[in-house]
Amino acid sequence: MNIEKYPSRLLENAVNEFSKLPGIGRKSALRLVLHLLRQEKEAAEALGNSLIQLRNEIKRCKVCYNLSDTDICRICASQARNRTVICVVENVRDVMLFENTNQYNGLYHVLGGVISPIDGIGPSDLEIECLIERSEDPEVKEIILALPATMEGDTTNFYIYRKLKEKSVKVTTLSRGVAVGDDLEYTDEITLGRSLVNRIPYENTPGL
Amino acid sequence: MNIEKYPSRLLENAVNEFSKLPGIGRKSALRLVLHLLRQEKEAAEALGNSLIQLRNEIKRCKVCYNLSDTDICRICASQARNRTVICVVENVRDVMLFENTNQYNGLYHVLGGVISPIDGIGPSDLEIECLIERSEDPEVKEIILALPATMEGDTTNFYIYRKLKEKSVKVTTLSRGVAVGDDLEYTDEITLGRSLVNRIPYENTPGL
Repeated sequence: MNIEKYPSRLLENAVNEFSKLPGIGRKSALRLVLHLLRQEKEAAEALGNSLIQLRNEIKRCKVCYNLSDTDICRICASQARNRTVICVVENVRDVMLFENTNQYNGLYHVLGGVISPIDGIGPSDLEIECLIERSEDPEVKEIILALPATMEGDTTNFYIYRKLKEKSVKVTTLSRGVAVGDDLEYTDEITLGRSLVNRIPYENTPGL
Repeated sequence: MNIEKYPSRLLENAVNEFSKLPGIGRKSALRLVLHLLRQEKEAAEALGNSLIQLRNEIKRCKVCYNLSDTDICRICASQARNRTVICVVENVRDVMLFENTNQYNGLYHVLGGVISPIDGIGPSDLEIECLIERSEDPEVKEIILALPATMEGDTTNFYIYRKLKEKSVKVTTLSRGVAVGDDLEYTDEITLGRSLVNRIPYENTPGL
């Protein structure tokens, strides 16, 4: 859509800002902005202010680097969590994913990415050094590497594993295998092969 | 996604506000908010402020009711436009669509909707009275009814047509017919029938 044809500079400006977001083109941006104009004044202000406030006030937890409203996040501050296990994840979204499984009660460590030379991300760009420091706490018994099952994730897993090898902490990783509910026909060969190699005693099936 | 699992109230608040927008679910909202957190502070502020400013400062043109930064919009204020024709459209987006065709140099009138009893929208909720007033200006020779080709659009077209019938102004409407580039096989019967009834002299084909 031709940029000159907006009836208002304010409208054009809002559309420009909206369409900078990933997955939102100029047409969607216009639709969203016109929607906001049809709402009460408060709706646009609430959205606008929530974004400004978020960006200015949100913090990173000083222990695990998860997003937090306070210096130390709720999970790290909680005495109800199992403080002997640290689950290493790529980003904040992954913490939420694991929390939503209701299967984990330990602590987290948010790396802030994975090693990816093609994107110019090396180990020093990630929160790896402080993970090593945390692993030296005698309270910590196990580090779970829960990075994505991609080449970058595997590389990062391996890098961290080598750093932790000499420490007294146990290093584990997520099991790979057939997804729950998946037909074997549609499972790729590598996953199927791994699920065979890493087979588990039938008695370990959860819910048995 | 469980609402309790957000690591931060600020994050949750921003996700809530984003997901109120049409077509944006909670997962998309989280993705957009995390994207903003990865950008410079200025990006979130620019988006937030553009929305607040838009909602507080944008005006409706006092003549045509299009969105405008000024009391009278650019199109209504322009002496380069053909001031004898007024194109009646449903909303602001339609003005932009017609402007983008580069085929129209007249004025507009934005109704702000179409008559739709099922949504509780009657003629008095639309800017119809002031359109009738505008049509009484001796400078105005033609009113183009360019509302959507829906039952509501047709009803509104007819309502306005009846109000304008006794005035000296000519009332026209958009031609209906086979879309440019469309195969006849995929054109619906009503459109195909109308395109036959309203056939035009071959010499009138644009670009001939």
